[in-house]
Amino acid sequence: MKRKHTYKFPRAALTVDCVVFGLDAEDLKVLLIQRDIPPFEGRWALPGGFVRVDEKLEDAAMRELSEETGIRDVFLEQLYTFGAVDRDPRERVVTVAYYALVNLQGHDVAGATDARSAAWFALDDTPPLAFDHDQILKTAHDRLRGKVRYQPIGFELLPEKFTLRQLQNLYEKVLDRPLDKRNFRKKILGMGLLEELDEVEHDVAHRAARLYRFDRKKYERLTKQGFNFEI
Amino acid sequence: MKRKHTYKFPRAALTVDCVVFGLDAEDLKVLLIQRDIPPFEGRWALPGGFVRVDEKLEDAAMRELSEETGIRDVFLEQLYTFGAVDRDPRERVVTVAYYALVNLQGHDVAGATDARSAAWFALDDTPPLAFDHDQILKTAHDRLRGKVRYQPIGFELLPEKFTLRQLQNLYEKVLDRPLDKRNFRKKILGMGLLEELDEVEHDVAHRAARLYRFDRKKYERLTKQGFNFEI
Repeated sequence: MKRKHTYKFPRAALTVDCVVFGLDAEDLKVLLIQRDIPPFEGRWALPGGFVRVDEKLEDAAMRELSEETGIRDVFLEQLYTFGAVDRDPRERVVTVAYYALVNLQGHDVAGATDARSAAWFALDDTPPLAFDHDQILKTAHDRLRGKVRYQPIGFELLPEKFTLRQLQNLYEKVLDRPLDKRNFRKKILGMGLLEELDEVEHDVAHRAARLYRFDRKKYERLTKQGFNFEI
Repeated sequence: MKRKHTYKFPRAALTVDCVVFGLDAEDLKVLLIQRDIPPFEGRWALPGGFVRVDEKLEDAAMRELSEETGIRDVFLEQLYTFGAVDRDPRERVVTVAYYALVNLQGHDVAGATDARSAAWFALDDTPPLAFDHDQILKTAHDRLRGKVRYQPIGFELLPEKFTLRQLQNLYEKVLDRPLDKRNFRKKILGMGLLEELDEVEHDVAHRAARLYRFDRKKYERLTKQGFNFEI
């Protein structure tokens, strides 16, 4: 690419940051890394870093995510661009934030090639984050909370086969409030989104519950069309 | 602000672009400016420009909009950040796009202080735009089309008092398809969003229709809560 520097004045630096949500048996979690350089050395932060001048934004986000956490092949969606003038104490840095939903069991964060440590934190138990990352995390959680109202979620967060209890747990964690079991089941089953399997869970102490999976075609159609899920 | 340039490598330039939608009696329109410098000299484009290093993104969008079109005091919402590597033929430029809805009658675009000409174009009759602005415009229209499904719109686009025909026209233009009149009226009145006035339109050739206005409290509540408007 020809480089005629058309804008002659000082420029902001550009970064990407990733909010990766995962679900385990108990909690909705977020993936954080511990910074090993200033500023905010030792503090936890969202994975992310500088965008190279010849690199697409999404590619930068994916690269930083895999360098810092070992996670690859997730579907990142752009969240919002944060540009407060003083959000980085070093200089003006504008960051394009992305978010992703992953099945936590399927992703090994130990594979990170970078020296920084990466770990999953329950959403209601995150440490104070570096920069404006608390605000970015809140924006991502709000987006997810809004999304469940008009699009199906869970496909990326749950294992292939799951119980209704697991699905309700996901909705409760996203919405951050308890849901009535009967009402939830009636609504979710009424949408025709789930396929009941001829299988029950195994290796559980309690009575084994029925397993379900998403009807992929219906799921994709509802993702496009949208609906109104009042719970 | 202390400037320790932490990122030593070449940097993208950062711009903002604004998609301003307005409604007149016939059409949903978008505000464009004609470029008077290369690249794309003479082509129409979205209002926008470079972000200053000490300027908030929203402030830059508002400044460019008022410099180039004379429009002030609109509510801008962030749309999406476009970062394709070759979207600007001069060099790498990442742009944060904003969009706004305005009552076209209330905004005089003649007041622009900039030499470029600004004009409103019907959404279905825009010229080929500079850069990737066709894609940005399409993204904004898609956002608006999605928004009407789960939030009320019209408050910013219509005059204070309007007829049901005007409101239906707005929805038809946003959704880009004709709607059944009886069905539309039943649904929209059923939401309790409208206040029927003891007034009819004046200076019209046809039979004067009843005027309505939005119940502001209800409108704001539904904007927050969301709903499902299947039409």
